[in-house]
Parts: sequence; C-alpha cells; structure tokens
Amino acid sequence: MFVLVNLKAYPCDHLEVARAAADVADDTGVRVGVAPQAAHLSAVADTGVETWAQHVSPNDYGSHTGSTLAEAAADAGATGTLLNHSENRLKLADIDGSVQAAERAGLETCVCANNPAQIGAAAALGPDAVAVEPPELIGTGTPVSQADPDVVTGAVDAAAAVDESVDVYCGAGISTGDDVTAASDLGATGVLLASGVAKADDPEAALRDLVSGAK
Amino acid sequence: MFVLVNLKAYPCDHLEVARAAADVADDTGVRVGVAPQAAHLSAVADTGVETWAQHVSPNDYGSHTGSTLAEAAADAGATGTLLNHSENRLKLADIDGSVQAAERAGLETCVCANNPAQIGAAAALGPDAVAVEPPELIGTGTPVSQADPDVVTGAVDAAAAVDESVDVYCGAGISTGDDVTAASDLGATGVLLASGVAKADDPEAALRDLVSGAK
Amino acid sequence: MFVLVNLKAYPCDHLEVARAAADVADDTGVRVGVAPQAAHLSAVADTGVETWAQHVSPNDYGSHTGSTLAEAAADAGATGTLLNHSENRLKLADIDGSVQAAERAGLETCVCANNPAQIGAAAALGPDAVAVEPPELIGTGTPVSQADPDVVTGAVDAAAAVDESVDVYCGAGISTGDDVTAASDLGATGVLLASGVAKADDPEAALRDLVSGAK
Amino acid sequence: MFVLVNLKAYPCDHLEVARAAADVADDTGVRVGVAPQAAHLSAVADTGVETWAQHVSPNDYGSHTGSTLAEAAADAGATGTLLNHSENRLKLADIDGSVQAAERAGLETCVCANNPAQIGAAAALGPDAVAVEPPELIGTGTPVSQADPDVVTGAVDAAAAVDESVDVYCGAGISTGDDVTAASDLGATGVLLASGVAKADDPEAALRDLVSGAK
Repeated sequence: MFVLVNLKAYPCDHLEVARAAADVADDTGVRVGVAPQAAHLSAVADTGVETWAQHVSPNDYGSHTGSTLAEAAADAGATGTLLNHSENRLKLADIDGSVQAAERAGLETCVCANNPAQIGAAAALGPDAVAVEPPELIGTGTPVSQADPDVVTGAVDAAAAVDESVDVYCGAGISTGDDVTAASDLGATGVLLASGVAKADDPEAALRDLVSGAK
Repeated sequence: MFVLVNLKAYPCDHLEVARAAADVADDTGVRVGVAPQAAHLSAVADTGVETWAQHVSPNDYGSHTGSTLAEAAADAGATGTLLNHSENRLKLADIDGSVQAAERAGLETCVCANNPAQIGAAAALGPDAVAVEPPELIGTGTPVSQADPDVVTGAVDAAAAVDESVDVYCGAGISTGDDVTAASDLGATGVLLASGVAKADDPEAALRDLVSGAK
Repeated sequence: MFVLVNLKAYPCDHLEVARAAADVADDTGVRVGVAPQAAHLSAVADTGVETWAQHVSPNDYGSHTGSTLAEAAADAGATGTLLNHSENRLKLADIDGSVQAAERAGLETCVCANNPAQIGAAAALGPDAVAVEPPELIGTGTPVSQADPDVVTGAVDAAAAVDESVDVYCGAGISTGDDVTAASDLGATGVLLASGVAKADDPEAALRDLVSGAK
Repeated sequence: MFVLVNLKAYPCDHLEVARAAADVADDTGVRVGVAPQAAHLSAVADTGVETWAQHVSPNDYGSHTGSTLAEAAADAGATGTLLNHSENRLKLADIDGSVQAAERAGLETCVCANNPAQIGAAAALGPDAVAVEPPELIGTGTPVSQADPDVVTGAVDAAAAVDESVDVYCGAGISTGDDVTAASDLGATGVLLASGVAKADDPEAALRDLVSGAK
C-alpha cells in the first residue's frame, strides 16, 4: 500500500509532516509520500521523504507564465504528481497533456476522479495510477470504503476493464489504519488523504496508525 | 453514415443551410444534421432538419446564469448535442455531467476528442458517439482520413476497447463525398464538418456531394 | 428604473413570465426586461418584451463552437446582455472582449460584479451599466439595499469615480416594490432579480408589485 | 525604475539568472527582480535577489489542492507577485481575490493587462502596480514603447485616472537599455521582460545593458 498525504493549502507545518512521514516510512518499510505546495517541494524533498506535486501543467518548456512546469517540479525534488484533484479539475485534453508532461519529466502520475465512469476515462489516458474520491466525502472523516464501498470496487473494475496495469488508489475520509485495511480489501493499492494527517495534533502518530493498516 | 454540419459562429445563413440539409436528407435518405448557435436552435429546428446543439452545460435546472441548459436546448428543438469540441474543451468531470444532463433531456450525445487515448476516455463516459478531430487539421480541407488515417482507426479501436456500443465519427478537413467514403472505410459511422458546407458558395451542392459518399 | 428579470436555468415557464413582463411594462410605462436561456431568446422576444441575453462570448464571427455569439443573440431578438454574472464569472480580458462584442452587435451591456472595487473595474471597461450583487445575498430574499446598503452606495460611488455615464443596477435579494424603491433611493437606476419573479406563484402579480416601487 | 525578469517556463538556468540579477542590482543600485517557477522560488530567493512569484491563487489557507497559496510563496522567499499575465489570464473576481491574498501574505502586486481600458480596471482593484503588455508584442523583440507608445501613455493615464498611487510598468518586447529609457520617458516606473534575459547567451550582460537605461 502507498499512503500519500496531500497537504493542500493547509496551514500545517509542512516540514514537520515531511519529517514524520520520512521516519515512519523508514521504520515500517511502508511507502509514504507527501504532496506539498509547489513552493515547498524542495524543502519537503530535502527531508528525504517521497515528494509529490499536487498538480503539473500540460505545457512543455516555453512561454507559460504561472504554469507549474513538470520539469521544474521534478527539478525541485518531486518524483510524482497528482492530477485533476476534485479541487483542481482539469479539461480532458489537459489531463492527457499533463500525464504526458509528467512522464517526460520522469514523474509518476495519479489522476483523481469522482466516480467509476470517470476513473475508466482517466485510466484510458495511461497514468500510473488513478484515485477515486467522491467529492462529497472529502474531509468528512467518513471513509469512502465504509460510506460507499461500491464506488471503490466500481473504480477498481472500471480501471481494470480499460488498463489492468493502472493502480487504483482510494481517497476521501481516510484517517485510520482500519480505513487503509478496508481500502486494501476492496482492491485499492494506495490511499490518498489530507486532513487526517495535516490537521492532526500529532501527525506522526496519525501516520503510524495509518501504516499499521497497510499490508 | 451521419453527416453533421457544425455552423460554429460562422456568419453563414443558418436557415439556408438548414433548409438545404433538410432537403438533401429527404431526397437521399441519408441522415444529415445541423448544429447552429443556441440562439438559432428553434429557427433551425423549424425547418424540419435534425437539429443539434453545439454544447450543453453539465448543470440541471437551477441558478446557472449563462449556462446552456440541456432541457432548454431540447425544448427549442434540439435532439442531440456535441460536447467537448476542441474549440470548447471541457473538464473531464463536466463532460461526464454534460453527458448525464443531455441524457436527462433526451438528447443524443457526441463527445469530441483529439486523439485515440482521449477517445477511449470519452467512450468510458457512456455517450452515444465520440468524434475524433485532430485540432491541427480542423478547417484545413485536408481530411483526417487522408492526412492521418491511423488516428481514425486508432480511435475506432480505442472506443471499441472501452464500449462497443459507442459510435465513432470522424471530423477535421472533411469536405467531399470521397472523404465521407474514406471515413466510412476506416470504421467511422459519421462525419463532423463545418467550413466545407458553412463556407461553401452553394451549401446544398456541397451537401449533395458529401452524402453521395455515404453508404 | 429598469427592472430586469433573469430566468437563469430555472424550470419556470419563460413565455408566461415574458408575457406578464410585456403586459406590466405596457400598462405602467416602467421599463421591464427578461433574460432567458439563449435557446429561448427568440421565443421570448416574440412576446414583445425587452429581451436580454444572460451572456455573450468575447469572440467575433468564426471558429468558435459552443460560444454565444453576440450577433446570434441580437439576431434572435436580444437588445441587451448581462456579462460576468456571479454564476458565470469571466476573465477580465474576456469581459473587455464581450463588452466590445456586444457593442458591435448593438446590444446594451450590464457587467455584474461582487463589490465596489470590482464595480469600479467593470465601469473602466465602458459598459452601459454595472450591477452590484454580493454573491452571498443572491437568492436569499434579503435585499442588498437592506442587508448591506453601503455596498450599493459604494458601488454607485465607485462607478461614478471611473465613468459618470455608467448606470448602476442593484441585485441580490430584490423581491418587492419596497426593495426597488430602496435601491433607487441608494442611487441605483435599475434592479436585477431572478427567483422573486421566476419562482413566484403569480409572476405577473410579483412584477406589478415590483414596478409599483419604481419611480 | 524596476527591472523585473519573468522566467516563465523557460529552460534557462534560473540560478544563473538569479545570481546575475543579484550582482547587477548590487553593483548599480537599480532595483532588479526575478520571477521563477513556484517550485524554484526558494532556490532563487537564496541567491539574495528580489524574488517574485509568477502568480498566486485567490484562496486563503484551506482545501485548495494545486493552488499557489500566497503564504507559501512568501514563505519560500517571494516578496511580490505578478497576476493576470496574458499567459495566465484570471477572472475579474479572482484578480480581486489574488490581490487581497497577496496583500495578506505581505507580497507586492503587479496586475498585467492588455490595453489601457483593462489597465484602468486593474488599477481599480488596488494593486501596487499594473503592467501593460499588448499580447501581440510579447516575445517579439519590438518594444511596446516603440511599436505602440500610445498604449503606454494611455495605460499611464488610465491608471492615474483611477488611482494615482498605482505604479505602471511596461512590458512586451523590452530587451535593451534604450527600451528601458523609452519606457521611463513615457511614464512607466518599471519594465517587465522575459526572453531578452532568459534566452540571452549572457544574461548578466543583457541585464547590465538593461539597467544602463534605468534612471
């Protein structure tokens, strides 16, 4: 299981979370990543934790002021990127372009989507992974694996029908090791979470609980 | 074969094209449709021609000023709608929403896309048809079936791999009956065209030539 | 005072509202307009009521599938258009382009904005009118003139500081003749409203009450 | 005069340009800034050069995956930000929000716009500066001060008419000290440039020539 912590634009201490994630990954052997703001990528990568961008733009090098160039994210230490998060929905053509851009820059890709139909569509674009996150459950503390397990199995089936090599992650409401185990039992090979760690009083304890559920 | 004429925002006489399309369809039995500006839908539908919207919004009834409500398009006489045309690219989640909205309103749907990967993605959302239109060929007069036949067969394969019930139309550069035949030979069951009719000196003659290539 | 009824994407009977508005305008001499979906423009205009588009695109004639061409709206009977409604916010450069496009097509323009600073910005682009509508009050039934009169006077001052010839309309929560009078007393020369008429059991009665407050 | 070098998504060595800019500013006393990709902000700021973001999002702290949080840009060392560059046009309401967000984070703001009318609109939102950059001249090497001096004086007048405290910068085609002098003579107090330095064989020499024209 891959546990990926999305720091969004939260007022958390990104270095504290990054160091905790690096320690937990080292101690347990479970894969843990952190996705900070683009401006914090290099500082987070310097902690040694696996570092992901929250987004990269579809463009190549060139006249693209204000874009998030995949190569710049990679250069700052990112090794993967989220794309099309429900808080940053992209045009279909731009998801395609961003997957290509990330690949060019050597970044792993995870395309988020809302439901099994969109997961199938995302898988058709050839990313390394897709993540199903029903928007209505994000930030609720109610895990999708419990509130709506059919969405997770539906996503796993939809991705497999299009491309069996695409991993399926599961997001929305994940905060405990039990949630991670439940996600795994439904066929997910990773979890995406945010507030469960970023807003925790003790991020490291939250992470240790989460990875305890990883198989 | 379905011949769908997209009037875009061209300064053509939409009623002249609509009447010509209605006549040609009546005379030949070939299915011909016209997609005018939303403001012209009812006038075009009044000619008796099969009328398509160029776009409908993903929203349902409600507080959506400036949207193109699927039900309003249907009410004005549309029986189908294009979605995600390369001049009006949509977010993945909104293509999904617009396909659902169109279905609710009883409109047939055709989702446009640029390449086989995106065609697969579009097919995963369950539209009635997809249309492959490499943006670099739109308006060139060089048919995609000739410039890049692999894009058409790739699109047909990509759609079939995801959902065999989804029709594949072919756009970009179509202007003659031979182009229609070539598209059909590559596996397309319809063509999307615009300037070839809308900018023709004699739209009816252009249409008669086009449908002569339909099988 | 100008009373402009925005039908948004409401499931109301657009023809009933249009006929009621035409009758009330005829009977009272008060200026009343109706802004329906683009697909309903011609049907609404046929009732004889002053007809507005909810939006027009910044583009001129050309390859702009899915746009709302100003000339098509005018051709269907519109004589004015809203722009940048809070449900359809536009890029600054596109508001500029849409104001120019509307002017080319002979449409009156009203640019909506959220607060006095944005009203000043909108006025700098040279529209015929601006409308201040705090998004948090839209659809509440609490008129901005009562909930936050400073926003209205601030908008009137901000517009006048930039261009004295720009009219200021007032939206959000307007539903009675008293609200119209209050808006007028604060310096507005028009009101923008939606649900107060579109969702009324008796739209004509609602309109008669509204215009009773117009001076 | 303020000389601000926008590195866009160019494949230049951002550290080489940053160090050159820091040296030139130190040696000459002319204010020189560099605006890199967000992922490069901290590395650029570490050189000691005045560092600007290319964009910040309108949002505050919170659930905004993929945004460019103003506070994160400031935290990484930025002291200013461009907004609404012609390659990254924003909604009017978002320019307003981004100016507020930047101010909260202690960042100076420069809102770009295409023409005098939009410059007036931008000035009404209360930024520290506005920059006029006719899109058709960006990257041409033909300075706006020469190709279209009326745009610069029109922008200076439009900004002053709305708010005299707003500085006006001038962009598009600036590459030599003479261009900087010409911009200053037309009333600009800064210049925005990109390829003239970022694509120069010797960025430091290009910068030394540029600042030689600053008064």
